[in-house]
Amino acid sequence: MEIINLKSESTRQKLMDIKNYLRKKKECVDTFLGLYFSSAIVPANLKESMVYSLSAGGKRIRPVLCLAAYEACGGVADDIVPYAAALELIHTYSLIHDDLPAMDDDDLRRGKPTNHKVFGEGMAILAGDGLLTEAFSLLSRGNVSLPAVPPAALLRVVCEAAKGAGIYGMVGGQAQDLLSENEEPDAETLLFIHRCKTAALIASSVRMGGMLACCSDAALSGLTAYGENIGLAFQIVDDILDVEGETEVLGKTAGSDEKKKKMTYPKLYGTERSREKAGELVDGAIEALEIFDEKADPLRAVAQYLLKREN
Amino acid sequence: MEIINLKSESTRQKLMDIKNYLRKKKECVDTFLGLYFSSAIVPANLKESMVYSLSAGGKRIRPVLCLAAYEACGGVADDIVPYAAALELIHTYSLIHDDLPAMDDDDLRRGKPTNHKVFGEGMAILAGDGLLTEAFSLLSRGNVSLPAVPPAALLRVVCEAAKGAGIYGMVGGQAQDLLSENEEPDAETLLFIHRCKTAALIASSVRMGGMLACCSDAALSGLTAYGENIGLAFQIVDDILDVEGETEVLGKTAGSDEKKKKMTYPKLYGTERSREKAGELVDGAIEALEIFDEKADPLRAVAQYLLKREN
Repeated sequence: MEIINLKSESTRQKLMDIKNYLRKKKECVDTFLGLYFSSAIVPANLKESMVYSLSAGGKRIRPVLCLAAYEACGGVADDIVPYAAALELIHTYSLIHDDLPAMDDDDLRRGKPTNHKVFGEGMAILAGDGLLTEAFSLLSRGNVSLPAVPPAALLRVVCEAAKGAGIYGMVGGQAQDLLSENEEPDAETLLFIHRCKTAALIASSVRMGGMLACCSDAALSGLTAYGENIGLAFQIVDDILDVEGETEVLGKTAGSDEKKKKMTYPKLYGTERSREKAGELVDGAIEALEIFDEKADPLRAVAQYLLKREN
Repeated sequence: MEIINLKSESTRQKLMDIKNYLRKKKECVDTFLGLYFSSAIVPANLKESMVYSLSAGGKRIRPVLCLAAYEACGGVADDIVPYAAALELIHTYSLIHDDLPAMDDDDLRRGKPTNHKVFGEGMAILAGDGLLTEAFSLLSRGNVSLPAVPPAALLRVVCEAAKGAGIYGMVGGQAQDLLSENEEPDAETLLFIHRCKTAALIASSVRMGGMLACCSDAALSGLTAYGENIGLAFQIVDDILDVEGETEVLGKTAGSDEKKKKMTYPKLYGTERSREKAGELVDGAIEALEIFDEKADPLRAVAQYLLKREN
């Protein structure tokens, strides 16, 4: 709970440290992804379309959370970068499909024109399909060149990714989000949407880090609670930023939730109460890491950082 | 090569046998899929949309090939139905996405309005995404209730499915197909499209049957050659049926390749030479099964059957 207290000198240091940590881990993931796709021999437009969205920036939060959870369980992050990077393929696919005219119809993402604006809708759909499928290819080919994660653990990781990304997670949340446009917000539906649409894959990212380290059940429970809490907080902050942020800083069109009549936390609770809720969730996330030692400090700091992010 | 010689009495019997075989295996897959989705608690429209396309009929050729390959290697098909059924989820997702206006823009599939015509484009995209992701969930959760397929074998199966369905397989083929519309057909591009778009996932289906049975390298080579041959033959027959078939029998709009200026075998080689090529491929497929005993008879018969299909 006191990991980041902005009043103290040591805390400013810790905030700098976590920014450094995030940057370094993001570089690992980006380096891997760059190499991975540079050697892919596939139709040129398809590759361009996938790489365009993958390299448009992004914080790589899901891979970083996976790496940080692996470290919290005593692992060396470098050993599992390809598995962590698979999460970014899944996340990027979801952004490409969400931005399509039939879905959220967005023109701007990470400060650049959305994928279908550049490559056309057909290729954008295929780029998304390709990224999602390639994620499972990455997760399942581990036994070739990486240090030994036992096959049974990897299989569990594949299943976890599918659960977080699929009909009981992200896809289910997106479907409910689509169905609930123009509806009056109610607390239960809103929680369902946010839990599934965003928190599920974030929680899976954290859990996958633990599973890759073959952690104990108790550790996995802690990571699960942490992931679910920060996942929900992340989406609430997203909702708030859509109301209060500026398009240039966000990299996507501000105010679009209101325009599309989306169900959001600020709409139901107001921004102030929403901010409080996000804070409570982050507190809960950090409490859930109680059984972990200082190797979980990056996870603790990331939770605080996500609360204060501006994009 | 003489498995089915239509002149003899025993051959008519064999043709009846294979129809029976296909029907029984299809029933196993359908029963599993029906039960699997009946218990799924996801947003109602999403579930309806997925089940609509899954239950629109279809021959379940990919699951059946997986089951038949498993039997050819000495396995009992009932033991691996969920893994085989996952292939139908992948196939169905690809049909839903292909039919979208931004892709092939088809109104009719398996004799019914296409998914997006009934549920809207947004939900159709999500139904496809959901089916694809759920396939990987099915493939990776084997250790819960099924007889032991070793985790390392299952992991290989997950990777194989991703390869056949992804950017080096089906998605890559679809992308090239989309890029090649209105282009003059050339043999190399046409072969690339058909190999990736259709043959890759069919070959993977056969290979997965072998992998699930932990078959020898020699057996896997035979299954691979068989699968690649019938996969290509399957698409050539599809091209011919689009020219010669009738919409009512096909269950999809006849003549649509010509209308969309697709690269096809009949367009490049004429229907007669295309039919010969398909026949040669089926012969090659059956030859590739040389090292297998009579347990591979259904695979041999399926190859002949695919050549003579009318939809």
